[in-house]
Amino acid sequence: MRKKVFHELLSLEEAKEILFNAFKERRCLPIDVETISVKSALGRVTAEPVFARFSSPYFHSAAMDGYAVKARDTFSATEREPVRLKIGVDAHWIETGDPLPEDFDAVIPVEDVSIKDGYIEIYASVPPYNDVRPIGEDIVATELIIPESHVVRAVDIGAMLASGITEIKVRRKPVIGIIPTGSELIDAETIKERMPNPPELIEYNSAVLGSLVNELGAEAKIYSVIPDEENKIKNAILNALKECHIVLLNAGSGYGKEDFTYKVINELGEVIINGVAIKPGKPFIAGFIREKAVLGIPGYPVSAFLCFDLFVKPLIELYLGVSTKKQEQLKALLSRQISSSIGVDEFVRVKVGRVGENYIVTPMGRGAGLLMSVVRADGYVVVPRGSEGFSQGSEVPVYLWRSKEEINNTVVCIGSHDNTLDVLYNFLRKRFPHVTLSSAHVGSMGGLVAIKKGEAHIAGTHLLDEATGEYNVPFIKKLLPEKKVVLINLVYRIQGFIVKKGNPKNIKGFEDLTREDVVFINRQAGSGTRLLLDKHLKELGISPDTVKGYDRDEYTHMAVASAVLTGRADVGLGILSAAEALRLDFIPVTEERYDILIPQDFLELPIIQAVLKVIGEDEEFKKAVSLLGGYDIRDMGKIIYSN
Amino acid sequence: MRKKVFHELLSLEEAKEILFNAFKERRCLPIDVETISVKSALGRVTAEPVFARFSSPYFHSAAMDGYAVKARDTFSATEREPVRLKIGVDAHWIETGDPLPEDFDAVIPVEDVSIKDGYIEIYASVPPYNDVRPIGEDIVATELIIPESHVVRAVDIGAMLASGITEIKVRRKPVIGIIPTGSELIDAETIKERMPNPPELIEYNSAVLGSLVNELGAEAKIYSVIPDEENKIKNAILNALKECHIVLLNAGSGYGKEDFTYKVINELGEVIINGVAIKPGKPFIAGFIREKAVLGIPGYPVSAFLCFDLFVKPLIELYLGVSTKKQEQLKALLSRQISSSIGVDEFVRVKVGRVGENYIVTPMGRGAGLLMSVVRADGYVVVPRGSEGFSQGSEVPVYLWRSKEEINNTVVCIGSHDNTLDVLYNFLRKRFPHVTLSSAHVGSMGGLVAIKKGEAHIAGTHLLDEATGEYNVPFIKKLLPEKKVVLINLVYRIQGFIVKKGNPKNIKGFEDLTREDVVFINRQAGSGTRLLLDKHLKELGISPDTVKGYDRDEYTHMAVASAVLTGRADVGLGILSAAEALRLDFIPVTEERYDILIPQDFLELPIIQAVLKVIGEDEEFKKAVSLLGGYDIRDMGKIIYSN
Repeated sequence: MRKKVFHELLSLEEAKEILFNAFKERRCLPIDVETISVKSALGRVTAEPVFARFSSPYFHSAAMDGYAVKARDTFSATEREPVRLKIGVDAHWIETGDPLPEDFDAVIPVEDVSIKDGYIEIYASVPPYNDVRPIGEDIVATELIIPESHVVRAVDIGAMLASGITEIKVRRKPVIGIIPTGSELIDAETIKERMPNPPELIEYNSAVLGSLVNELGAEAKIYSVIPDEENKIKNAILNALKECHIVLLNAGSGYGKEDFTYKVINELGEVIINGVAIKPGKPFIAGFIREKAVLGIPGYPVSAFLCFDLFVKPLIELYLGVSTKKQEQLKALLSRQISSSIGVDEFVRVKVGRVGENYIVTPMGRGAGLLMSVVRADGYVVVPRGSEGFSQGSEVPVYLWRSKEEINNTVVCIGSHDNTLDVLYNFLRKRFPHVTLSSAHVGSMGGLVAIKKGEAHIAGTHLLDEATGEYNVPFIKKLLPEKKVVLINLVYRIQGFIVKKGNPKNIKGFEDLTREDVVFINRQAGSGTRLLLDKHLKELGISPDTVKGYDRDEYTHMAVASAVLTGRADVGLGILSAAEALRLDFIPVTEERYDILIPQDFLELPIIQAVLKVIGEDEEFKKAVSLLGGYDIRDMGKIIYSN
Repeated sequence: MRKKVFHELLSLEEAKEILFNAFKERRCLPIDVETISVKSALGRVTAEPVFARFSSPYFHSAAMDGYAVKARDTFSATEREPVRLKIGVDAHWIETGDPLPEDFDAVIPVEDVSIKDGYIEIYASVPPYNDVRPIGEDIVATELIIPESHVVRAVDIGAMLASGITEIKVRRKPVIGIIPTGSELIDAETIKERMPNPPELIEYNSAVLGSLVNELGAEAKIYSVIPDEENKIKNAILNALKECHIVLLNAGSGYGKEDFTYKVINELGEVIINGVAIKPGKPFIAGFIREKAVLGIPGYPVSAFLCFDLFVKPLIELYLGVSTKKQEQLKALLSRQISSSIGVDEFVRVKVGRVGENYIVTPMGRGAGLLMSVVRADGYVVVPRGSEGFSQGSEVPVYLWRSKEEINNTVVCIGSHDNTLDVLYNFLRKRFPHVTLSSAHVGSMGGLVAIKKGEAHIAGTHLLDEATGEYNVPFIKKLLPEKKVVLINLVYRIQGFIVKKGNPKNIKGFEDLTREDVVFINRQAGSGTRLLLDKHLKELGISPDTVKGYDRDEYTHMAVASAVLTGRADVGLGILSAAEALRLDFIPVTEERYDILIPQDFLELPIIQAVLKVIGEDEEFKKAVSLLGGYDIRDMGKIIYSN
């Protein structure tokens, strides 16, 4: 049944065409115009061309400090036979910007004359208008300063004022009304006073949508939350239509019992779009009420963000008559495959990094509820309707949310997860504001593979070799025999059991993991923590089959801690700082060494130098790591191995 | 003497190092911090990392509309033997976002079940947490949302609110005081009521500098104009220092009698920079008073703009702890040589266009007073101290003030000047907001050469062939024999004598140009208007030697009209619209055809299609051109010639 719905949906292109044409036909345009002061016009869009009222300069003026003269008086001057002009009669002291005296037509800079007994001596002839700024040198009266549909910049303001223009006509900012709906929603300000209680949800989409509106140069009008009641929603819309150009109804555009958007728009006006074959953002609705566009924006934050970008932004641009900057694009190689359903255009958030000569793109979590995936993403990749996805290693176009320059200054860190990396990220930003750290958590082994394949600048790793008891080096020698690398210590850290507060299941050791009443949560294969578990199980002769939950794995220490906190598991193996962050209990098992692996090729890159500076020299960083708890920084920055 | 001064000046690098080090050493930093509401944090810079206060979601909730069940109840379900669960007991209707009932751990979407007699039938087993958004799926309590030194975006606001953060610490906006000084300056608002009178100058630099400050996310405080009096300037600075982090003193940093910046800073504090070897911007001064930076910004608008970019912007970035976006850069071929003095870094404003595969860069007017050169420029080229310039055809790096995308969407028009081109530019922006027209006025012949060399998309031309009396075509056949082109008519226009109001010299024909009391202003060689003059002089047997001013030439009709208006000449040859724009008198001589030449290669480009649409189909455009006066649009858009 779900599939059937998809087939009935409009494609993205169809939906856009229907919406934009309806918008134009219904005369939601032309655009309102207002007259404003030029001094306050920064960023506004001109509604008509601006022509100079008068010239600038509007009188002949000196371009240098010196003496105003008549050019014809100087014609016979030479080095040998200088011309002498009486100061105050034939030559007048004049400063830059001063008007030329009547009948004078040239200026001789002060450094080119000698002064003797009330006369100046001139050693070379000057032509008329020498060192004079003639009328209109900069701007000639009536000339075009800036055209229509132009976004006013600082210099434009200067040129307009210089030519006598103090007020201009600009496009009025369209007012975009945002109505959050949902009986369970509470205003974000509420949580200043108390914690929310289920089923309450903090309403934050309106702040995101409002900020996006304001960023585009339109005006957001955010209304208070309306519960899921048909009549209240109707009234809210009718009220908003009185003062807004477009109204966004946030949430309620799905097919649930409490989704009233379709019904309400249908009864008050006309629905023209009901669902679009995109992911996220499928339940997008568009309609017109009283000749104004009313849009149903889905409730999931990523869907709302995407629908704004695809549908609301272009409408605002139509109002303002400008095209905002297009997203930068680049081609990058996929580090993992992306699969997607046929039938929808899917927008997959991605991380992008420049490692060596290549841009490497890695898909991120895809749920419509994962706002952090947008916060952390560098951009997105579109998997078109007709495609089932892209294979690993293929080159795909990436639409960037950050600038290419930022991407180029991003340290790509792939490997084991450690909370110290967050602190490192933060200190990098603090000390080197142009440098960013992007970390993907795929386990220690995954990090080594990424370094081998040239997909990462640095990798965090804590792989314990069962045979030698040595960390990392045996694995590097085996996996990357020909790569020139440096291994630098970051921290020693304590691994142990993360259990609920008070340790209700009384976990003491690995033997307890086989108990009938204990559910374990594991880390993914290839992670150092998993290796640690396997080593201990083997030593104790415990078969993994007897550990309930051995097959359920998570990718980070925090995710393991979160599983314990929320009751999905009783115990997991992880680091102390993760347990402490969520106020869980912790039973220490062992200290392990966590290192950073860097190919020698990258050592001289300024972004890697920045990393080394923070790790090697920053006392404040060391202190911040110590404060996390469970870390020993005795060897931080020390070279462990290099080949 | 001038040369000597240059040698004493600091280089740009030295000046920057001295200023930024002094700024850091004097503890003008660390930065003030303030706590603000997250909802109003768009664009602000975080002063500390932001960690999640609680998880999002903070309870297990349904990810779909459907039925909450216990996963273990569904384990035996198959297509043939569905499991039946009683609604209200073993299965509860649940909507997206609702909390899972106690002891329930999975959701089955409504479309995957059948409902019969108060029971749901399930046809496949579901695992625990099926279609459930577990606690912390998006954000886990204590995780890093955004780091320090991060510019807050719309999505960041959403993520912070979702995780319980309603207030954050951000860097306080540094307050930049701007004090305009100059006895001749009048506030721009004055000209709302009356015209300025020499030597009055409209003060507009403060509006430009203030807008630049605000654009960077700092706060501008603009003070009223202070006359050139030492004590008043001192008081103004001391007053501003009480409420500002940095004070800019605009004008007065030169060596004139009324330039007090050096003296004032030196007496109240310490001057650390007095002049820099850059052009424009040489008289830049920097100092410290009461441990705060006071900068002397030169008065010429281009110098002020450049000094802001080179010195003030980096200081603001130090305060905010972020690096603003670097200017985009591209490599382009020089269409003309640039020569520059040894000893200064010269910043030359340029136009850039993409024609075919190449970016072509053309230097513009270089006076420090030419603000319009900044308004019209696409960016700048730096000629370094050690270099005398660049030769034509060389590849130079260009720093862009407009985006590469805008450059790519710019129609490069080189050739004869006509006021209709301004109207065309304006209509292009109106109809196709992403398209820009950049026109360089080098005369008709220059336009043909530019087309031949692949440096222009279109050229305006009105070349009269003496032998045949035909316009343009004979020249095209001769100059571009192998180029496939289309020649399209834009207008017929009237050329004639532009004279002062009332025609005081009583000019009636070309014979009058030889009169002793008549000064002529010519157009440059290669312009159609000059050819027209030469044809008439030849026919009348007048030698150019007998025309006073024949050797003084201007590049546009408006410049010729301006020369007449300001008294530099009595008469020039030009078009009616130029005379009318400046309210001069006009004596018609002849009607001529003004065409647009386009290489066939470019016809299909969307930007050229846009031009053709406006010229060929836009009735409003035709009307606007007619209203200029002196134009006949009978053949507008007609193809005159194509090969």
